[in-house]
Amino acid sequence: MIETRETHACHGGTLGLYRHEAKTLGLPANVTVFMPPGAHADAPVAAVVVLAGLTCNDETFLTKSGAIRFAAEHGLALVAPDTSPRGANVPGEDDAYDLGTGAGFYLDATEAPWATHYRMGSYLAEELPALIAAHFPIDAQRLGLMGHSMGGHGALVHGLKAPGQWKSVSAFAPIVHPAAVPWGEKAFTAYLGPDRAAWNAWDATALLTAGHTHPYPILVDQGEADQFLRDQLQPEHLEAAAGKAHQALMLRRHAGYDHSYWFIQSFVADHIAHHAKALAT
Amino acid sequence: MIETRETHACHGGTLGLYRHEAKTLGLPANVTVFMPPGAHADAPVAAVVVLAGLTCNDETFLTKSGAIRFAAEHGLALVAPDTSPRGANVPGEDDAYDLGTGAGFYLDATEAPWATHYRMGSYLAEELPALIAAHFPIDAQRLGLMGHSMGGHGALVHGLKAPGQWKSVSAFAPIVHPAAVPWGEKAFTAYLGPDRAAWNAWDATALLTAGHTHPYPILVDQGEADQFLRDQLQPEHLEAAAGKAHQALMLRRHAGYDHSYWFIQSFVADHIAHHAKALAT
Repeated sequence: MIETRETHACHGGTLGLYRHEAKTLGLPANVTVFMPPGAHADAPVAAVVVLAGLTCNDETFLTKSGAIRFAAEHGLALVAPDTSPRGANVPGEDDAYDLGTGAGFYLDATEAPWATHYRMGSYLAEELPALIAAHFPIDAQRLGLMGHSMGGHGALVHGLKAPGQWKSVSAFAPIVHPAAVPWGEKAFTAYLGPDRAAWNAWDATALLTAGHTHPYPILVDQGEADQFLRDQLQPEHLEAAAGKAHQALMLRRHAGYDHSYWFIQSFVADHIAHHAKALAT
Repeated sequence: MIETRETHACHGGTLGLYRHEAKTLGLPANVTVFMPPGAHADAPVAAVVVLAGLTCNDETFLTKSGAIRFAAEHGLALVAPDTSPRGANVPGEDDAYDLGTGAGFYLDATEAPWATHYRMGSYLAEELPALIAAHFPIDAQRLGLMGHSMGGHGALVHGLKAPGQWKSVSAFAPIVHPAAVPWGEKAFTAYLGPDRAAWNAWDATALLTAGHTHPYPILVDQGEADQFLRDQLQPEHLEAAAGKAHQALMLRRHAGYDHSYWFIQSFVADHIAHHAKALAT
């Protein structure tokens, strides 16, 4: 079951805001979906799942990134889940922008009181693909994954963990090594506990170091004027680990660009084209 | 004097959020400006001033419309003023979405208590063009005007009142005859008083009927699934008045599209191209 909150014609296709009972989360969850012109049950389309960053929700990326125009041109669907469970009623979940609501980190929490509802990892890996395949003319065998910041972390981690499921991966200004930076240390300590060995399953640099790779080149754009570059993002970790793992990585550094959606919209056309190429067949 | 709140690299140019002391309004005012790549004092660029609708602010149109990509391609600046004075402290100004804050209607109020600060008409016609010409490499002889809904009303009215100042005009889902619809009747009664004769100076249909025309064709896009089409927009008034006035009008009706920015982003490329053509020389 999926409930339609709103639909809007957009670029010849349909932008829809939906809600469903997410069993993985034990809560209702919102999801925003763009279906390109011409998609129908007899001609299901490939889809790119887009993961937004801290403080965002399921509408943010599609509202601000400018991706829809290019998805429409390439005949791709776009699927945007929320960034965390909503209404889990975990004490303190709304106290900080980088933990709890809006900050699910696309992982499965193992620690109380988070473990009951904060299961965005399984939600993204299992429930969301099944949901969209059941309710939209989307070919679940042709899914790509793209994200920004915390969502870039999600895209890299899930892409490396399940390269057969996610055929293409790209990220804008991703958190590439959460175990080594303040955002990740705070969230992983809360969600996964103090044993850092458990963190490696949700850390892109650690996954590459452990031998996980993706067969298709990974595209990453990073602004050099990003206010979080040195303290939180540190793409050099990804670059080094990818090199050692023989992972093809296109890491593009852009002088003058920061962490905002003004940066994302400047390069999103390349990301959609990257996914379209991988998902064409 | 203009204060820089934020700047962001975007599409090879610069998106900036600014604030200045608006003498016309007697208050500080925000304005958002996109300067395309290559603009400098020796090569000032043409600009399109973009007017947002009810409830919006100076950031909304540039955040959600997708216009920047095309402005960058055409070498046009984009200038987005706010939709009303902020902080005028008129009793009740924050009580309704369609009067007061976020609802300035781009006119000069004549009635107390609005008349002191609610002077967006003169602000747009005089202070804003002077401001941008003084502080940015913008050629004030090559300005276009574009708007949405209440901002579409603003674009049509100002374009018809001063066709020498605004070389090109376009609108998305504009209020074309405010004197005849609830939004306009409410705002005009408050801002301009009960004498409807005074309303004609701020009503695009009335201006056309009174003989005001624009030498360049006016582009209007209207969604046929717009929830405000019948009660508030009624583009047939504009079409009829333009016909009688021999005003060239390209009124495009789009099946399925509503009043949202999902509609605007679907057609904004055509609007930017329309302005670029008119402003090229």
